[in-house]
Amino acid sequence: MSSRAHRVSLGDSWSQRVHPDIESERRRQAFDVERLTNLLDRGARNTTLRREVESLFRSDPAFSLVNTYFMTQKEHFQAAAQKRFLLHKMAQRLNWPEDGLEIDYARRALSGDIILGVHTVATKAIISLGSEEQIAKWVPLCKTYQIIATYAQTEMGHGSYLQGLETEATYDAATQEFVIHSPTITATKWWPGDLGCLATHAIVMAQLICSGAKRGMHAFVVPIRSPQDHTPLPGITAGDIGPRMGLENADNGFLQLDHVRVPRENMLSRFAQVLPDGTYIRCGTAQSNYLPMVVTRVDILTSVVLPSLQKACVIATRYSVIRRQGRLRPSDPEAKILDYQTQQQKLLFPLAMSYAFHFQAVSLLEFFQHAYNAVQSNDTSLLPELHVLTTGSKAMMTDFCAYGVELCRRACGGHGYSKLSGLPSLATQVVASCTYEGENTVLYLQVARFLMKNYQQIWETEGAHSQRSLPQSVQYFTMVHHDKCPAQNASDFLLPEIYTTAWAHTAARLVEDSARHLQVLTQSGADQQDAWNQTSVSLVQAAKAHCYYVTVKSFQDAVKKLDSEPAIQLVLKRLCDLFALHGILADSGIFLYDGFLSGPQVDMVRTAYLDLLSLIRLLG
Amino acid sequence: MSSRAHRVSLGDSWSQRVHPDIESERRRQAFDVERLTNLLDRGARNTTLRREVESLFRSDPAFSLVNTYFMTQKEHFQAAAQKRFLLHKMAQRLNWPEDGLEIDYARRALSGDIILGVHTVATKAIISLGSEEQIAKWVPLCKTYQIIATYAQTEMGHGSYLQGLETEATYDAATQEFVIHSPTITATKWWPGDLGCLATHAIVMAQLICSGAKRGMHAFVVPIRSPQDHTPLPGITAGDIGPRMGLENADNGFLQLDHVRVPRENMLSRFAQVLPDGTYIRCGTAQSNYLPMVVTRVDILTSVVLPSLQKACVIATRYSVIRRQGRLRPSDPEAKILDYQTQQQKLLFPLAMSYAFHFQAVSLLEFFQHAYNAVQSNDTSLLPELHVLTTGSKAMMTDFCAYGVELCRRACGGHGYSKLSGLPSLATQVVASCTYEGENTVLYLQVARFLMKNYQQIWETEGAHSQRSLPQSVQYFTMVHHDKCPAQNASDFLLPEIYTTAWAHTAARLVEDSARHLQVLTQSGADQQDAWNQTSVSLVQAAKAHCYYVTVKSFQDAVKKLDSEPAIQLVLKRLCDLFALHGILADSGIFLYDGFLSGPQVDMVRTAYLDLLSLIRLLG
Repeated sequence: MSSRAHRVSLGDSWSQRVHPDIESERRRQAFDVERLTNLLDRGARNTTLRREVESLFRSDPAFSLVNTYFMTQKEHFQAAAQKRFLLHKMAQRLNWPEDGLEIDYARRALSGDIILGVHTVATKAIISLGSEEQIAKWVPLCKTYQIIATYAQTEMGHGSYLQGLETEATYDAATQEFVIHSPTITATKWWPGDLGCLATHAIVMAQLICSGAKRGMHAFVVPIRSPQDHTPLPGITAGDIGPRMGLENADNGFLQLDHVRVPRENMLSRFAQVLPDGTYIRCGTAQSNYLPMVVTRVDILTSVVLPSLQKACVIATRYSVIRRQGRLRPSDPEAKILDYQTQQQKLLFPLAMSYAFHFQAVSLLEFFQHAYNAVQSNDTSLLPELHVLTTGSKAMMTDFCAYGVELCRRACGGHGYSKLSGLPSLATQVVASCTYEGENTVLYLQVARFLMKNYQQIWETEGAHSQRSLPQSVQYFTMVHHDKCPAQNASDFLLPEIYTTAWAHTAARLVEDSARHLQVLTQSGADQQDAWNQTSVSLVQAAKAHCYYVTVKSFQDAVKKLDSEPAIQLVLKRLCDLFALHGILADSGIFLYDGFLSGPQVDMVRTAYLDLLSLIRLLG
Repeated sequence: MSSRAHRVSLGDSWSQRVHPDIESERRRQAFDVERLTNLLDRGARNTTLRREVESLFRSDPAFSLVNTYFMTQKEHFQAAAQKRFLLHKMAQRLNWPEDGLEIDYARRALSGDIILGVHTVATKAIISLGSEEQIAKWVPLCKTYQIIATYAQTEMGHGSYLQGLETEATYDAATQEFVIHSPTITATKWWPGDLGCLATHAIVMAQLICSGAKRGMHAFVVPIRSPQDHTPLPGITAGDIGPRMGLENADNGFLQLDHVRVPRENMLSRFAQVLPDGTYIRCGTAQSNYLPMVVTRVDILTSVVLPSLQKACVIATRYSVIRRQGRLRPSDPEAKILDYQTQQQKLLFPLAMSYAFHFQAVSLLEFFQHAYNAVQSNDTSLLPELHVLTTGSKAMMTDFCAYGVELCRRACGGHGYSKLSGLPSLATQVVASCTYEGENTVLYLQVARFLMKNYQQIWETEGAHSQRSLPQSVQYFTMVHHDKCPAQNASDFLLPEIYTTAWAHTAARLVEDSARHLQVLTQSGADQQDAWNQTSVSLVQAAKAHCYYVTVKSFQDAVKKLDSEPAIQLVLKRLCDLFALHGILADSGIFLYDGFLSGPQVDMVRTAYLDLLSLIRLLG
């Protein structure tokens, strides 16, 4: 009844051989897999380095992941702690550079299953926000683990709305100290990682009050646990916040401060200072304090969010070539489930996403490095654009990666529900990123604010506007578009200019609609905030379409540059086509709404899309 | 800075008082909440009974859920086992009827956090599939827990495709026994609940082989563990399948059978028998064997899936009136997050869903009881319609409930990621239902097959067809529709006939498109199976639209019947409107595609929808 090719008899011993169905798929590769690997690693030397690092962990039983899924939350945390310190010793022994690729590859090899992620974030916060003296004092202590730091921003009652944080830092000129205080239960710092039982110090974000005035959010270094016996210091109540959906290794904690005094020097003062007499001096823009968030967001996208999707794609695709179920023809053996059109639809979109976001992350990293260097020289002019780019990328990539991982998980049927598949922990880990470091709806609305501002700017200066005055990412607002898509058959929809224009047209149209809606409401007497709230569902829709356009555009630009690798360029172009067309089909209403696409053109998109599914399946 | 109304000072002790923001919301109810409760309970007497049962558990520390989230998987399982037996004793002490509402309410009060769910399924399978003698022999043993049974259908390599199950039951006429055997590793029974360590017997679904012929899937009672010391019997290998994403109390296990012999009487023989000489006699349709699945699906929808969504809605809505974040106006205190349009969009759709599915489940239960009674009298004529109704309801309700619970969970920000909110366990529990008891894509394709069959029947008999010959759920195929929606303003979209017709038109159009596509492919030479596979993405889309239509229709019908309760009718009508319009907006492309709706009409839908959000918010 069953073909021998894909059945293992009970009498066989488990073997290390690759499954024959996987082997036969690998034999028919249409491009050089190694060269694509090098491309993703951004260079063949990196590929070599990555494999060297990975082999260190694979061969060392101390880093084994074998029992991970059978551990309790506490055992999981302890194992993650042990790995973190073994990793530290390994890095010292092998002389790995501090911020080198080796450490990144090591973290990826360990699936991020180590502690002190937030200690690193807190250390970077000191570097971003501290004066030279403060950096010289605190950073070496962090790097040698003489202190362990947490970054304590979120409160039990306050997350997205930073101005609402209740923790206070009141300057006392008499003693030249800040009095750090949680005035209410809702002011309790809640969620910071590495705080539950590890941290000795917290970088506390608090409302500065000096010379009788509130000065907004600033960062303070606050010792919280005894360096002798690790007990909480006077005035400190701290502990674990209890079990989470995932993130067993994160040591998420809470912190209440009861009039805790720290010296004046403990306010991080690169961008603002309080003089001994309480005079407040600002040395940068208020936005500078947001820089640690930007750094953290970019880091999370490249080190947690995207790798989760990549891993899920690998697991689910491999499963789908060895899992056979049902028959496509009565006389055939049972079919590989990857040969079902519905399974291709489920898995090839996440695959396309993972490439789209890879290239988007690369271009984001480049822009980030450029802007970050400028900020370190006190040039903050690029911060608004950096902020909105990371905001939009964070919201879109976390939303879609969470969706993609869950698609992959469910596409593996029951086995995707078993922790042993690896997929449940990827899913619960990545979905947290939709919430932490900025809740996604709040972030889309920040993107929308940027879009509205720039749209209004064009509108106000119409006739005289210059495209150059607009930030790069919204220059498409002023492009001249057709009112209708000129595509005449399915293959026209494989032309990048056709689908990129479709996305540009529709994103710009949604931005325009929201702007008009806002205007109508304010002109009919609603105040700004009410009008904004009453438009927010539309604004989120516009921001999402904008982010999708940006991703399609960056993917297309990256594919264009691959002329020297035609075979790889071809397969990546197909994934780019699939990414763009999947989005159009999934939300065809916004393209049909104003007649930009007609019904028959949507059929052409579907035809092109379904053809791509089989083409990409066969190239696999 | 913060208004006292919603801040608890650190000095306050925790109190049992209701939060003032909740209290003020409750004061402004626009309808009689108690009467709506009675309606949902299907009678005031049921409400009273339910509350009596619930109070038994609330007051008994043995049933406390306080530590649930801090337990390891093993502790969780042990606690669930203890609760199950305390519940059994309580039911005996209070003389609760065996299949009465008390037990249902008790299970709901315990959040299903008890063991032996599948033991109950297996017992029902014996009742459905067994002869009178078999029922008399096995069921009392099950009900008194002298044996513990599991229902072993799914195999490691086989889930959705039942014909592909590999486990064999070969009749040996010489000894009048069946030899039950797992010929391969992939034939291992995998996932059955209560099997990991509990079951003494398994209802094994296996391919019957007798008189040299394969007879398809039949059910066999197989003893698997010793009644003396609970060790596996000769030929049996069984155990736990390892950690899952949720379902800690399910005792999911595996089972391998190595030529295990059971007497001829152990084949459940209501619908088929093997005579001593090996002669095979069928006494019913092949579909009868699927009956336990139908029973289980209906049970899961009403006892697990829908309650999960209902609970998530309660948690997230309450949270959204006490959580304040940001300001809608600079001078106001921070706003309740439920007053943000985007939060209303997130939460009110799941709320509308939970009512839509409640009424759908009620009508499904009524039809089920009717059809089940007929089957017990050997009249199986209603089975196909029952099967497709439960199939479609299972796919749609589990998909949407999983989506709705996750929407609720994410709408609570970080707190929704804490297990202590209750939301993560609801999410991981309900999402499993998209996979178990029939993977949803497979189920949608079964619905699509039913739709195609009935559509072709109309087409073949065109001119002479009678609406009465069609099953109730697809009679809308033959309704005369407008080509264009006649709505002229937003309020027209609050007319149930307008949106129900829109769904009917679009579902029928998608069914027709898929049927044509199938026809074109077969006429151009593709074989049936290839054509089906190449159309499957469209077929799933058509099945989903059909299920959405069925749900809108049953919700609308239920609301119509509430004339005697105008205030409740009004608020439920708004939820019905919201459910229908949300679906149109979320998938507006299928309505715009053929011009049934125009762009301006989609704007009207949006206007009506956004108005509904604020109206329902205010009625809260």
